[in-house]
This record gives sequence, C-alpha cells and structure tokens, in this order.
Amino acid sequence: MNCDFSKLSSAELAGVRRELEERYAAFQAQKLKLNMARGKPGAEQLDISDAILDSANPKFAADGTDCRNYGGLEGLPEMRQLFGDVLGINPDNIIIGGNSSLNLMYDAVARLMLFGTQGSTPWGRLPKVKFLCPAPGYDRHFAVTEEFGFEMITVPMTENGPDMDVVESLVKADDTIKGIWCVPLYSNPEGVVYSDETVTRLAAMKCAAPDFRIFWDNAYGVHHLYEPAVLKDIFAECEKAGHPDRVLYFFSTSKITYPGAGVSMVASSPANCAEILKHMTIQTIGHDKLNQLRTLQLLKNADGLKAQMEKQAALLRPKFELVLETLEKELGGTGLAQWKTPRGGYFVALDTLDGCAKETIRLAKEAGVTMTGAGATFPYKNDPRDRNIRIAPTFPPLEELAVAMELFCVCVKLAAVRKLTA
Amino acid sequence: MNCDFSKLSSAELAGVRRELEERYAAFQAQKLKLNMARGKPGAEQLDISDAILDSANPKFAADGTDCRNYGGLEGLPEMRQLFGDVLGINPDNIIIGGNSSLNLMYDAVARLMLFGTQGSTPWGRLPKVKFLCPAPGYDRHFAVTEEFGFEMITVPMTENGPDMDVVESLVKADDTIKGIWCVPLYSNPEGVVYSDETVTRLAAMKCAAPDFRIFWDNAYGVHHLYEPAVLKDIFAECEKAGHPDRVLYFFSTSKITYPGAGVSMVASSPANCAEILKHMTIQTIGHDKLNQLRTLQLLKNADGLKAQMEKQAALLRPKFELVLETLEKELGGTGLAQWKTPRGGYFVALDTLDGCAKETIRLAKEAGVTMTGAGATFPYKNDPRDRNIRIAPTFPPLEELAVAMELFCVCVKLAAVRKLTA
Repeated sequence: MNCDFSKLSSAELAGVRRELEERYAAFQAQKLKLNMARGKPGAEQLDISDAILDSANPKFAADGTDCRNYGGLEGLPEMRQLFGDVLGINPDNIIIGGNSSLNLMYDAVARLMLFGTQGSTPWGRLPKVKFLCPAPGYDRHFAVTEEFGFEMITVPMTENGPDMDVVESLVKADDTIKGIWCVPLYSNPEGVVYSDETVTRLAAMKCAAPDFRIFWDNAYGVHHLYEPAVLKDIFAECEKAGHPDRVLYFFSTSKITYPGAGVSMVASSPANCAEILKHMTIQTIGHDKLNQLRTLQLLKNADGLKAQMEKQAALLRPKFELVLETLEKELGGTGLAQWKTPRGGYFVALDTLDGCAKETIRLAKEAGVTMTGAGATFPYKNDPRDRNIRIAPTFPPLEELAVAMELFCVCVKLAAVRKLTA
Repeated sequence: MNCDFSKLSSAELAGVRRELEERYAAFQAQKLKLNMARGKPGAEQLDISDAILDSANPKFAADGTDCRNYGGLEGLPEMRQLFGDVLGINPDNIIIGGNSSLNLMYDAVARLMLFGTQGSTPWGRLPKVKFLCPAPGYDRHFAVTEEFGFEMITVPMTENGPDMDVVESLVKADDTIKGIWCVPLYSNPEGVVYSDETVTRLAAMKCAAPDFRIFWDNAYGVHHLYEPAVLKDIFAECEKAGHPDRVLYFFSTSKITYPGAGVSMVASSPANCAEILKHMTIQTIGHDKLNQLRTLQLLKNADGLKAQMEKQAALLRPKFELVLETLEKELGGTGLAQWKTPRGGYFVALDTLDGCAKETIRLAKEAGVTMTGAGATFPYKNDPRDRNIRIAPTFPPLEELAVAMELFCVCVKLAAVRKLTA
C-alpha cells in the first residue's frame, strides 16, 4: 500500500526522495537500452503470420484475375468482402490501398487540399483551414494536419470520446473547421471506446462547413484484449442524419498480420468512393493484389481474422496486465499519477502531476528507456499541462517490459517528488 | 511488293477498296476479341518471375532489419544498391517506393503543388502552371498534369528526343513552364532513345523558372530487345551545368518482375531527396520491405537483373518482329503509313494518313480488336493531325497478335482508301 504523497511532511518527502534517487541511480548503473516509444508489435506477434512467408503464394483471384499483372484499382472483391464482413460495411463502399492506412489518410487530406470534395472549394485555396484534434490523441494524425498548415484545435477527451458539447459548439459556428480526427475504438493513447451517443452526435451534428469530414481511423477495430467492445455504425447514423458523405473510414491489417506489409482500406459513401477512385486512377494503376491474396490465404474469412486476433490478444494481455499491475503497485494511492485501464488497442496513457511529463520522460531516457516524447499526444507536441505520457507496451519482451515499467514508475515518482520538494 | 497508293487511278483505288472491304468483312465474321490497348506484359512474361511466389520469403534484411515490422522509410540498403548499380546512380540518392512508379510521380507533382520545392512558391498558389509534353508521349503522364490543371504544351518528338530548339526557346522565355515529361530510353510510344546531345541540352538549358523539373521516367531503362542502348548520365550533366536539383528520376521493376507487385524508386539530388523524405515520413511509416526482399531474392544483383531482362527480351522479340514484318508486308511502300523500328521498350508507334487514326481504331474495334484510343499519345487526347496510333504487342499470345496485326493493317488501309475515294 502506497502512501498519499500530498499527506507527507517535508521531512517524509525528503526521505522518500532520497530513496527514489537511490533506486534511480541503481537503474542507471544497469545501462539499460529499452524502447517503449512506438505502437510496434513484438517479434512474437509477427511470428503468428509467418505462414504468409512460408506458403506458396496464389496468383489468381476468385474471379480469375491474374494478380501478378496490372489492374484492379479498387482491390480484389474478396478483400473488400473480408473487410466488409469484419467491420459491417458494404463491400461496394470499400477501396483497398497499399500497406499503409496512414498513406490513405494523408492522400485523402491532400485531395481535399487540391481538389475539394463534391464540388466544394479546394481547402488549399481557402485562407484558413482548422481541424479538431481530440487530445490526448495520435501524433501521426496531428503531423498530417500540421504538414498541410491547418490550425489544430484541441478538443478534450472524455471517457466516451471527444467532448461532444465542445465539438458541436465549435463546428456549428465556424465554417473554417473542416474535419476531426477520431480513433473510435480503444483510442490512441487512452483506449477510450466512443459511446453510442458520441457516434450518433458526430453523425448528426450541424456543421457550418458542408464539406466537414470525420477521419474515422478505426485502427484498433478488432484489437480487443478481452470481450469485444462494440462500436455503433457511424455510416448508418450519418445516413439517418442526412450526412451520407461525412465519414472517411480507415482500417488496415498492419497490426493483424505484418505492420510493414499489411493491406489498408478506406470506406465511404458511394459518392465519395467514386470521387476517390476518379483521382486514384490517375495516381496508380492499382495496389499490390498479390499481397491481398497472401493476406486472404492466411486469414481466410471473418472468423479466421477473429481467431488471428485472439492469438494477438493472448500475447498482448500479459504485457498490458504487467503495465497496469506495476502502475498500481508503484503509483496506486500516491496521488502522483492517473491512468485508464484500456480493454484493447495498443497503449496505456498516464497523467503525471502537472508539469512533470517532460521531466519523467527525460529521466527514463537518461536511464536507458525510450518512451514516446512528452507532448506527442497533443497538437503541436504541446501538452498544456505537461502531464500526459503514452506507454507502448507491445514491442519489448515481457522481462524487459517489467524492468522498463519499474524504472518508469520510479521516474514518475522522482520527477514528482523533486517538484514537490523544490 | 505493295503499290504506292498515291499513284493509283480512281478506278484502281475503287478496286482496292472493294478488296479491302471484303477482307474487313471476313475479319468481322470471325467475331474476334483481342486486345492491344495497353503496355501490359503477357502471362508468359510473368511466369519468368514465379520463383517469387513459390519460394519461402526471407524476413531479414542484410543489416538485420525485421522486414515484417514498421520502418525503413527510404527502402532497404540492398534494394537501393541494386537500382544504383543497374542505373548508375548513387544509392544514397535513391528512395524506394511501393509497387507503382506512377504513384511516385503523381505524389511528386502533388508535393510541388502543395509545398513547392527548395523554398519556391507552391505551384498550387500560382495563377498558371504550364508543362512541356513531348508528343507522341505517354497518356498517363498527360493525365497527371491534366489532373492538376496544368496547361500542357505539346513539344514535337524527333528521332533524338524532344525537339530541343523548341524546348529551349520555351523554357527560357516563360517562368510559368515548370517541367517536362521525359521517357528517355525507348520512349512511349515511339521507342526513341534520347541522344547524348539531348540529355546535355536538357541538363544545361536556361530555365526562366528556377523550380523547373525534369520528370525523367526511365520506365524502359533495361528493356532492350537487342544490344543495349546507352543513355547519358543526366545527373552528371545537371551537376556540371550547375542545376543539381533539376531532375526527378523514376524507375520500377513493374516490367522486370510483376507489373502489379514490383518495386519503384525515385532518385534525385541530396537536397531533393531530403525534401521528399521530409514529406514522405508524414505520409507513411514505410513501404513494403518484404516485397523488396522478394524482388532481391529473385534478381540477386545487377547481373541477375540483366539475365532476367534477357529472358523478357527473348519473349518480346518475336512479337515486335511480327508486328514490324506485318506492317512492312501490308503497308510498306503504300505511302499510307509511317512507323519507327524500336530497339526496346513496349510499343510500336504508327502514323496513318492525316485524319485517319480515329477511323482506323474505330474499324479495328468494330472487328473485335481493341487498340489504345486514337489521340491518347497527345495532351488532352488531341492529336492535331489525327494520325498517331500506339501498338502494344506484349499482351496477346503470338498467334492472336498475328491475326490482330493483319486486321489492324487492313483497317489502316481501309480508312485511308475510304478517305482517298470519298
């Protein structure tokens, strides 16, 4: 049982600080070199899919298409069907991409900049474009909108998704707000599952910009650690609300099969899909169909994909549980940190005392443990309270993770106690 | 020996026309369904690479990189080395892409539109952008520049490449001319090899626009049918001339291994490569490294790639020779058509009498043979003399090609004689 640091006397704090400095010095002496920076699967997660590498690769799609040759811009029918089955989307509204859904998102923003959508002014010709960034959020999303010069507006996250009161009031009043980033299931980094109400309000809300777009990055759509959370069908909600073109829905097999060689997709309304294909047919003759066949040979169908994700979860559950147990053991009851308990996804997010995230990360780094940079979960890498830290437990082996997490907790406490005794 | 149609009397022409109408009707009765529209490799060309599909796929790059996982934005060192060796480019100046060099070209233009280059104004913020399009040329190039709203200026092709007197006088005088499309070796569709002088002049010419860019699409850089033609090193020429950033050089293995699953590259100056990577790192975490390993496992090194291309040439030579023999036999000496004799690449280009290309293509189509659309080899699909036709002999099997070519020649003659007797 940890003590509540706010109740400690100056003398007690000084004592605790001495103990922590000693523990920290002992870690430094170990000359660790551990990495918890990115949401990168561990080698044992990759091994699950190695039948892809070891099996002969089929050449022909079900309809006889020779997948070695040119063509097939929208992707193989069976690949679109698999994604459709898994995500509950009409396969006709799915377009298959290359190995990176981030690339599909970037290209989608680039097209909006260059061409606009459904007759709207290209965003690149507008004096100002703003984008809503629920935060803590995903640094690569924020990097895309920063690249294109959009003003990013931070929207607070709640336990049900973005604070919808804030979102609604912003989009209603300002037609330069053109979109929002969403990771609706097991959000990056907090693991928040968007509630039904959040989905419905996002679909139904009145936007001053008719070309407002929701970038619905369902990166962790099947990445459950326990019983699956269920996400409300945003396409159906948009349809009901009379906003059929509002959502661009992204997904990939990067964290189902191989991160570097998965298959990505974008789904949207028929009108948006037609528009995407109109531009994509100028950009490429088609994405890699052989890799679609390889992926299909491994996963087979929606049940096969589910079985694959159970194998992934079996590998990840002990890592997440180790992280949460270490946090509880070292920080529970101290009042020095708060965290959520994700039921899926790739991260655990932790809030330190205000003003202690950067120092915590610096301490960890100097003792040989690389974490995601402090601030990364906010637009412009600017966490106004300097407190949010993203823990990425997937890559290190379990033994290394145990060491890294213990050190990390020491760093959280040391940064805090140094501040309290300063 | 064919007769010169310009020397025939009206009565003789009428007789020839009757014969041709009969031959054409006989073809129509066969209800053919043949395709010579695109530069698509035939199935037997794909079979050459099937060790890719049948072999176990390596996981690790030479430096130990796990190619299944994220990372490796600029591509595997050994892949950059292979392209460097084959093309005589410093591997440090090579960036590996996905399966489509067209995609790299499109993205390069999109970046110039959105961000400019080396500090220049983004092209999308300029009131006007013009692009030089040597023609006959590649329809997909023209489609990219049309997509972005550039005004395309047709530059005549000579037997040594674009007419450099025209190019030089245009780029010197007009700073809204921002680039040129080039297929320097076995140009699409004429098979022209750019002369040393053309390369030197392109590198050295004075451009009013400091951000003028040569899109150097060396699509057929190793696609020799006979002894290899040698292309002068444009990077060295640009360096000498003090224009190190002028060239964006594209290449891929699409027509070396598999069209749908090859490996692409862009090469440029260190400054341009740094700029490309700065944007690419926002766009993607990295392209498919496993496919790079697969490609390397098959081709091994520059000698292996050369041996692979000799196998390709052995399959393509009979097709090209059949096309040229049929043209000579049916059209030689008639004065009804002119064509070049390519020594590599993917096409044979033919000029009909003025005003006869569309009609020739229509006649072929109605007898069941699909050709590239007339006009496709010019900007805006507008061939001012309506005479250029691109013959793509690679896809049909030899027996089908023989039938298709005979019909095609009948169509060329029939369109001409109908015009002459109208």
